[in-house]
Amino acid sequence: MPLTLYDFMGSGNGYKVRLLLAQLGLPYKLVECDILKGETRTPQFLAKNPNGRIPTLQLDDGTCLAESDAILWYLAEGTRFAPASRLERAQTLQWMFFEQYSHEPYIAVVRFYRHFLSKLSPLQELDLPERMTKGYAALGVMEQHLARHPFFVGDRYGLADIALYAYTHVAQEGGFLLDNFPQIGAWLSRVAAQPGYVPMDHKA
Amino acid sequence: MPLTLYDFMGSGNGYKVRLLLAQLGLPYKLVECDILKGETRTPQFLAKNPNGRIPTLQLDDGTCLAESDAILWYLAEGTRFAPASRLERAQTLQWMFFEQYSHEPYIAVVRFYRHFLSKLSPLQELDLPERMTKGYAALGVMEQHLARHPFFVGDRYGLADIALYAYTHVAQEGGFLLDNFPQIGAWLSRVAAQPGYVPMDHKA
Repeated sequence: MPLTLYDFMGSGNGYKVRLLLAQLGLPYKLVECDILKGETRTPQFLAKNPNGRIPTLQLDDGTCLAESDAILWYLAEGTRFAPASRLERAQTLQWMFFEQYSHEPYIAVVRFYRHFLSKLSPLQELDLPERMTKGYAALGVMEQHLARHPFFVGDRYGLADIALYAYTHVAQEGGFLLDNFPQIGAWLSRVAAQPGYVPMDHKA
Repeated sequence: MPLTLYDFMGSGNGYKVRLLLAQLGLPYKLVECDILKGETRTPQFLAKNPNGRIPTLQLDDGTCLAESDAILWYLAEGTRFAPASRLERAQTLQWMFFEQYSHEPYIAVVRFYRHFLSKLSPLQELDLPERMTKGYAALGVMEQHLARHPFFVGDRYGLADIALYAYTHVAQEGGFLLDNFPQIGAWLSRVAAQPGYVPMDHKA
């Protein structure tokens, strides 16, 4: 049994894994799950990932791994995409946790509201402005870092770039304007120029 | 210059780092920052961590590391607290990302609302019930795992336990009742019985 990736094509978290799999040249079976129809909350899916989320990667022995960044870490070990030292491992994780805590809940969630939902709930209407503010704050932190570094860790393309690229490059689908973030713009181009790069809608 | 930890004693994210430092027997200088008074948003602090958050660990060469779980990873490398195989590294990170994405924003944030704020904003009032629901969902995922395992990864105490313990053991300060989570209760006791354990308010 090869690698099986349970995923939703519109997900940036899923795209992180699909991008690295493509760059590693690893074959895998893609099983699409429509999160808008609750396909990750069925008993069958919850047996694979009790937290009911994509991406979930099933290894050849049947073991399932969840959380996009944990999957990236697993796939990258021993390859050129993995950080090379103790400090770089910590810095890579720092940016990956930054992405999941200070970036994704704002930039990805606003994109989800505006790109995938036909109508917002009262709570979503009310929290949207704060999510926009915090999303721009995350972009500001990235811009400041990229003014001094070509990539996020160790001056070379790696896991932190993959983690941050996924939702940043579609931030405009949530209404975020990147015009005032020229360093981010240049970095997005550097990432898209990497060998083996595939766009978000590419199917292996 | 020894290790310097910038921290807020009420923070579970900070406590993760303080607990591991104690268990490793590593000396460090504690610099308390009152997040309620904006002390992590001063230009001086932002020069250490542009994202303006504690915990931030300054290494002996002046390098600063942010994000509690990245700091744990750094400190644990080469010690008995680090996961022992490629799969266990991925599983440890899976639980750490679960904690930061599916647990902390609900269990820790509700605790922050109820334990540290004197008055909630209209948005906080409105989002509190959903945060309670999602916090209980995270506890449910933990309970299910702990019914089959004494600790989160590899059947021994490690980083994933430290990451999840910090806010779970004070969940009642946010109004979460743990009575229906007996496996979590037993695991909390197992963590508190580990050699070198220190409580949240312990100062090195």
